[in-house]
Amino acid sequence: MIHRSVILIVSFLLPLMMYCQSSGDIRKKIISVLTDQQHEWNEGNIDGYMQTYWNSDSLLFTSGGNVQRGWNATRAKYKKSYNTKEKMGTLHFSNLEITQLSSTSAWVFGKWELQRGNDHPNGVFTLIVRKFDDGWKIIHDHTSSKK
Amino acid sequence: MIHRSVILIVSFLLPLMMYCQSSGDIRKKIISVLTDQQHEWNEGNIDGYMQTYWNSDSLLFTSGGNVQRGWNATRAKYKKSYNTKEKMGTLHFSNLEITQLSSTSAWVFGKWELQRGNDHPNGVFTLIVRKFDDGWKIIHDHTSSKK
Repeated sequence: MIHRSVILIVSFLLPLMMYCQSSGDIRKKIISVLTDQQHEWNEGNIDGYMQTYWNSDSLLFTSGGNVQRGWNATRAKYKKSYNTKEKMGTLHFSNLEITQLSSTSAWVFGKWELQRGNDHPNGVFTLIVRKFDDGWKIIHDHTSSKK
Repeated sequence: MIHRSVILIVSFLLPLMMYCQSSGDIRKKIISVLTDQQHEWNEGNIDGYMQTYWNSDSLLFTSGGNVQRGWNATRAKYKKSYNTKEKMGTLHFSNLEITQLSSTSAWVFGKWELQRGNDHPNGVFTLIVRKFDDGWKIIHDHTSSKK
């Protein structure tokens, strides 16, 4: 009887433990993507920053009502809008909320702010992230700021 | 041999056919949520409109940089901001793109516009939708417009 109970408990607990561990791992990996993104931006490295996005024509990026489709178009828009270190300023993310949707997908909500010489733009963002062979990547970014 | 080939083909095709049917069904159900939402809004029925959102304190709604947490707060904000039929105007969604993330989750990107007497606000939205016992509901709405 003891033997059977142990098997029962393990068969219930093991998947739960694996799920919890997996969720924690996924959370860490997604936070690491955003930490990388912040770091590369603050180094003035847009190409490094762009590594956190899905390199696909299906990448969908929207900010301030403007829509960019595809990794190349998104990179080109960033290179054009932030062509100096002054315009890039210092990026800071906060209040990150990560919700897992499956073993290979999640969404993230958070706050962003840019510290620059003359202004302090800020707002919120929603990301859809997916797990690929080369790690978690942002497949959709919806960024907005207060009007 | 023919018998074995048929079994092989069916065992490959059946899951694929079921997946395709399921994806199509999910797509239809999510479009129906948005059609309901548009319809209830255009009837001036905010309570009906709110039925398309997850009735939970964890509902996360953001528009124009303002964040509402929870179904009650979101409903209260709508009731306050759109207290007349004139302010509500006529809502129209277009260019809906639905991407399934799991059997119980998807994200939606689309355009929205309000036709009103004096103005024509418009922009884009990202929704996260999840399947519950009582159907597909919006668990997160990020709406933005051009500045």
